[in-house]
Amino acid sequence: MAHQLFNGRFVMKRERLEEFEHIFNPRSVAVIGASQGDSFTESLIGTRMKENLFLVNPKYKELFGKRCYASILDIEEGIDYVVIAVPAPVVLDVLRECIEKRVKAAHLFTSGFSETGIEEGVKLEDEVKETARGKIRLIGPNCMGVYCSKSGLSFNPEASTEEGSVGVISQSGTFADLFLDIGKIRNIKFSKAISYGNAIDLDCPDFLECLAEDPETKVIALYIEGTRNGERLKSALWKAAREKPVVALKGGVTEHGGRAASSHTGSLAGSPETWRSLFKQAGAVQVESFDELVDTILAFTCSPLPFGNGVSIITNSGGFSVMETDICVKAGLEVPQFREETMRELREVVPAAGTSIRNPLDAWPIYYIGPETLSNAIKVIALDENIHSLVLHIDELRYMKHTWGGALEDRLKELLTSMVNACQYARDEIKKPVMICVSLEAYSEDEEDRRYHIMVKKVFESKGFPVYPSLDGAIKALFNLYRYHRMTGPLTNQG
Amino acid sequence: MAHQLFNGRFVMKRERLEEFEHIFNPRSVAVIGASQGDSFTESLIGTRMKENLFLVNPKYKELFGKRCYASILDIEEGIDYVVIAVPAPVVLDVLRECIEKRVKAAHLFTSGFSETGIEEGVKLEDEVKETARGKIRLIGPNCMGVYCSKSGLSFNPEASTEEGSVGVISQSGTFADLFLDIGKIRNIKFSKAISYGNAIDLDCPDFLECLAEDPETKVIALYIEGTRNGERLKSALWKAAREKPVVALKGGVTEHGGRAASSHTGSLAGSPETWRSLFKQAGAVQVESFDELVDTILAFTCSPLPFGNGVSIITNSGGFSVMETDICVKAGLEVPQFREETMRELREVVPAAGTSIRNPLDAWPIYYIGPETLSNAIKVIALDENIHSLVLHIDELRYMKHTWGGALEDRLKELLTSMVNACQYARDEIKKPVMICVSLEAYSEDEEDRRYHIMVKKVFESKGFPVYPSLDGAIKALFNLYRYHRMTGPLTNQG
Repeated sequence: MAHQLFNGRFVMKRERLEEFEHIFNPRSVAVIGASQGDSFTESLIGTRMKENLFLVNPKYKELFGKRCYASILDIEEGIDYVVIAVPAPVVLDVLRECIEKRVKAAHLFTSGFSETGIEEGVKLEDEVKETARGKIRLIGPNCMGVYCSKSGLSFNPEASTEEGSVGVISQSGTFADLFLDIGKIRNIKFSKAISYGNAIDLDCPDFLECLAEDPETKVIALYIEGTRNGERLKSALWKAAREKPVVALKGGVTEHGGRAASSHTGSLAGSPETWRSLFKQAGAVQVESFDELVDTILAFTCSPLPFGNGVSIITNSGGFSVMETDICVKAGLEVPQFREETMRELREVVPAAGTSIRNPLDAWPIYYIGPETLSNAIKVIALDENIHSLVLHIDELRYMKHTWGGALEDRLKELLTSMVNACQYARDEIKKPVMICVSLEAYSEDEEDRRYHIMVKKVFESKGFPVYPSLDGAIKALFNLYRYHRMTGPLTNQG
Repeated sequence: MAHQLFNGRFVMKRERLEEFEHIFNPRSVAVIGASQGDSFTESLIGTRMKENLFLVNPKYKELFGKRCYASILDIEEGIDYVVIAVPAPVVLDVLRECIEKRVKAAHLFTSGFSETGIEEGVKLEDEVKETARGKIRLIGPNCMGVYCSKSGLSFNPEASTEEGSVGVISQSGTFADLFLDIGKIRNIKFSKAISYGNAIDLDCPDFLECLAEDPETKVIALYIEGTRNGERLKSALWKAAREKPVVALKGGVTEHGGRAASSHTGSLAGSPETWRSLFKQAGAVQVESFDELVDTILAFTCSPLPFGNGVSIITNSGGFSVMETDICVKAGLEVPQFREETMRELREVVPAAGTSIRNPLDAWPIYYIGPETLSNAIKVIALDENIHSLVLHIDELRYMKHTWGGALEDRLKELLTSMVNACQYARDEIKKPVMICVSLEAYSEDEEDRRYHIMVKKVFESKGFPVYPSLDGAIKALFNLYRYHRMTGPLTNQG
């Protein structure tokens, strides 16, 4: 048992904490199989790890302006952590040298093991496992390894070096990589990210237990396809979910998907129902797609939880107000009518023609009356007791451009200052989540239009609001905050 | 009865066809209430309608470099069609002048009628209806009116002037407008688009019947919130769906959404089940969101129908292959195993390490071996009898950039030529739909990366493939093609 009970909480034993310290915050790192254009070296050389990075490959004398060693045994300094990126047939030799060098942990990027389904691969994987047992901790094989913003460990040359609060645990390397890429675009910052692949030694539950206790990690994103030990996973999930929100995506929930999963990482997939009940019992928030995982994590990083399921939508079109209400209700939320008092106050603030003084507030004329009108409406709505969260859908930019012409930038900035102020009031004083949707087509080539949309996005982000390019994403994320609130009880609010 | 039976098909009587001719292809158009920055005038002045456009507003002598008339009665030429964009209190006077001028049809942009729920608005709407009855056809009020690429009629200054095959009928002005905007970005071109709002005279069934017979319209996109005459709508839908695919989105399918809908256009919403059965019986393909409507219409404009539900996914990552399979199966498709013969041939084409010779084909190494490898794999898969359609997911660009560096553009172009060739073989010779997904984050600010993604998108578009920024969208659209194939019987293939 690697845990002990302390003050009613399970905490890791010191030896285990030290093991993870070597993995996430190694004093020195070697890349074995470094090469020109190799993305591990490129990633590490761009972070604070640069000074303590050693490159190994008998083919080169120098790489990236650094000496390149023929073998790890040639390095004089001690090495805590290695990235092994050599072809499968030489992995065993390299691993033995790492053990001789007393390396603490190795990440095996190499693929060609049990995931191939070929006997040779399975046999080699067993040999690697036996060779390492008790001598060195392994991450992988067939994975991207570890990212830690604090220490500078990284596998993604494009990833942010800024520290953040999201911990990612992913059986798929692509999703770990993609999460870091998207994080930069969506204003999500990470404490740690782990792609653990075939998991022949350290497995998902180990990383869950570690991130559960990691003070830098406030929310955990999990992508998992299968497990060899359901009971251990359940217990680790439960421990983690007691400490912080765990948002989990199971890949391979369908029969065909399960087949794809087992050929991807060689693990057993289990039935969708088993997994659903496992997540539910553990207290993790299960999501249905990678987009929903990202959208929900974004919400958890910067929003209070809603105390109920009543949503108010503030939009610029009747068509949207109808569709958005459908999306909310299908997701599991409600769009209740405003209280009498709210209606009365809104009527004072908002002019009648073209605007519906109802929830959703179909409010395009408000944008043009004066910057205070919309913010006053937001404040009135925030106070309505039927309303537990607000979704602000901003899709008026193409009309504003038309109406305001050359004055667009100035008037938009003025409007935004006032809108952000009202949203801060709703979130910080009334403690209600405010989700922002700034609609933008991915393939749009109207650069001016893109610039304004991204300007709006950044203004809201700079004040810590979660911003979504699609309404569906914003609303599903909001529903997941609400689900978490229901699971954790009416008295908690992480706000 | 405005229809007669001819050769077993219902066709419109000549008088009615002429009425629609005045609406879609008017010889002359007047905008009453034209102003500086007014988007109707701005739209019309940018099309071939410019020469036959007349502006009316007593406040101006000249607008957009054109003479501005004090009243429509001051115009010497005959006017077929008017856009009425004046405040509600003067609508009746303006309408009487139009009748005096013997205008054939009027689009009432003005809002402030029954949709407000206010007695005054309802009364005014009745008066407008009575005044017009038998004297002038009306579109609206509270709507954007009519777009016709052939005649140059338009309500959206940004809309394409190119002719196309999609007819849009929308109760919501925003969605009609947005469809035209998105069409430009997503390579969808339109024959006609109608935003019909409160529909006090011409209603959804009229436009359905018209587009059903319109030779320029090959597929109909419908957004509807409610109707005053369910039987007539059903009959019109049925007639239209006999002629061409009708893809329908019902706004307000939930109870709260229905409330929002009735406050938007003042029409009765009906229960979700009633609508579902209405669409099903009529043979229309019902979709669940505006995105799905756009994605499905795109597929109908340029893809053959799949003869079955077996999909092959070609992707660059194990994680994606798992999630994509889940998406397919949840949507109602299958991702069957390849036949033995396909596996054998693929093994010859595709190298083993890191690639799964299974469906989905998790195939990143294929991108780097030589441009023919991937296209050979596509051709082998296209021939598999278990497979009825292909989804090609392209998300390898960030890795290609890294691997190929400065040679990226040349190598990518070479690869694309070969890929497009294989996809054309699958679509044009083997008659199987090929959906292309080029993943791109809406908010991405990496301009170089965006440029390459959009280059890939355009190469596929130029050969008539439907391209999607999200996999979910591509797969839902594919499923809707399959649903349509099932509805219309195994012998039809519009390909």
